[in-house]
Amino acid sequence: MPDNNKTSIVVFSGDMDKVFAGFLIATGAAASGMEVSMFFTFWGLKAIQKGSLTGKGLLGRMIGLMNRGGIERVGPSRFNFGGIGRWLFKKMMRDKNVVGLSELLETAIDLDVKLYACKMSMDVMEIAEEDLIDEVSGFMGVAGYIKEASESDVTLFI
Amino acid sequence: MPDNNKTSIVVFSGDMDKVFAGFLIATGAAASGMEVSMFFTFWGLKAIQKGSLTGKGLLGRMIGLMNRGGIERVGPSRFNFGGIGRWLFKKMMRDKNVVGLSELLETAIDLDVKLYACKMSMDVMEIAEEDLIDEVSGFMGVAGYIKEASESDVTLFI
Amino acid sequence: MPDNNKTSIVVFSGDMDKVFAGFLIATGAAASGMEVSMFFTFWGLKAIQKGSLTGKGLLGRMIGLMNRGGIERVGPSRFNFGGIGRWLFKKMMRDKNVVGLSELLETAIDLDVKLYACKMSMDVMEIAEEDLIDEVSGFMGVAGYIKEASESDVTLFI
Repeated sequence: MPDNNKTSIVVFSGDMDKVFAGFLIATGAAASGMEVSMFFTFWGLKAIQKGSLTGKGLLGRMIGLMNRGGIERVGPSRFNFGGIGRWLFKKMMRDKNVVGLSELLETAIDLDVKLYACKMSMDVMEIAEEDLIDEVSGFMGVAGYIKEASESDVTLFI
Repeated sequence: MPDNNKTSIVVFSGDMDKVFAGFLIATGAAASGMEVSMFFTFWGLKAIQKGSLTGKGLLGRMIGLMNRGGIERVGPSRFNFGGIGRWLFKKMMRDKNVVGLSELLETAIDLDVKLYACKMSMDVMEIAEEDLIDEVSGFMGVAGYIKEASESDVTLFI
Repeated sequence: MPDNNKTSIVVFSGDMDKVFAGFLIATGAAASGMEVSMFFTFWGLKAIQKGSLTGKGLLGRMIGLMNRGGIERVGPSRFNFGGIGRWLFKKMMRDKNVVGLSELLETAIDLDVKLYACKMSMDVMEIAEEDLIDEVSGFMGVAGYIKEASESDVTLFI
């Protein structure tokens, strides 16, 4: 078992299956006793949004509408079929008693996985701090990520 | 040259070009004397499937049909054109004397690269142990992956 | 702050947002005093191409045409809408005073980030050395990458 290790994961993708893989690795690492930080950036921010519509300017509102956030709204990278894929995957996971994304997020929080939001992506996409779930551990720029990553044994970009 | 290093690669993608990159890095690392583990999960499982149709329930059979496995069946992430892309890339690689995916897989096995299949993805997608090639080194959950990754110097998610 | 650390990033993707993330992490790490190497392979080569048409054979010219290089030609992975997305994202980033891709590339060069091109991908895609920008630090095979990666604390595949 890892002794004093640290894992840092950049969650760039907003695809359900990739976000799922990210949380699975994060909770698995935390359960093994590692310190874990997740950095949500670009499309990945979806996973830690409350799900309200975001954006103030025209472009920001467009992005907010087309890419509405919330952990239950992310769709798979393949076979989405305009939203059916999300339902299909959820059903398959439920049928196999695999934990869902919302539960994985809760587990991550319970296991003290740090959830950081990328400040710059929030600015570009016009996502405000209050659009994110309350459990977010902090807002960070690239320097903060680099510090964490350079101290980590496992570094992943998802 | 790396002395006692270890590389662990999560192969999440089922795209030909990404799977190719994964095997290229894996065999390169093994050839440099590193211990290498590859973890095939979600779409990546395709690369170590025999190619038979999989799935028992309706949804599992649907996935098995639409996403039929086998290393020769994976298509590129861009310019697939309904299957022509796969042929085109194979032809370009052959023309340049670049080794193909099947040969890379064999090389990986010869170089003792460990090939692990993600048990949970197999369950969700209804892929049975006998659907995978015989050279699979084992079936693993996230805890097994974390153990390997935390001991690795190079950790990648592809 | 990291003391003697090294970061190595494989840039496999040719998507604007992912390339952007890659350069952001690279420049951030370099600014923190880390040594940084970026390995441009497959579609990622686009980011260090001059932008001239490439390819000699029929297939190579086809790829060169459909996937024309140059840092200003890469489009986002989502919402591209046949090129509008590239403009839209550029506009949003400009509006928020976020640095653009070309400037990030220049900053990376100024901060002495090493830019390596994957020789094999260049061969397969018929991209010649003179098709790449002059600031490329060298041409490398997988063995060269493995050497760098095995000495790095932060290893990412983008």
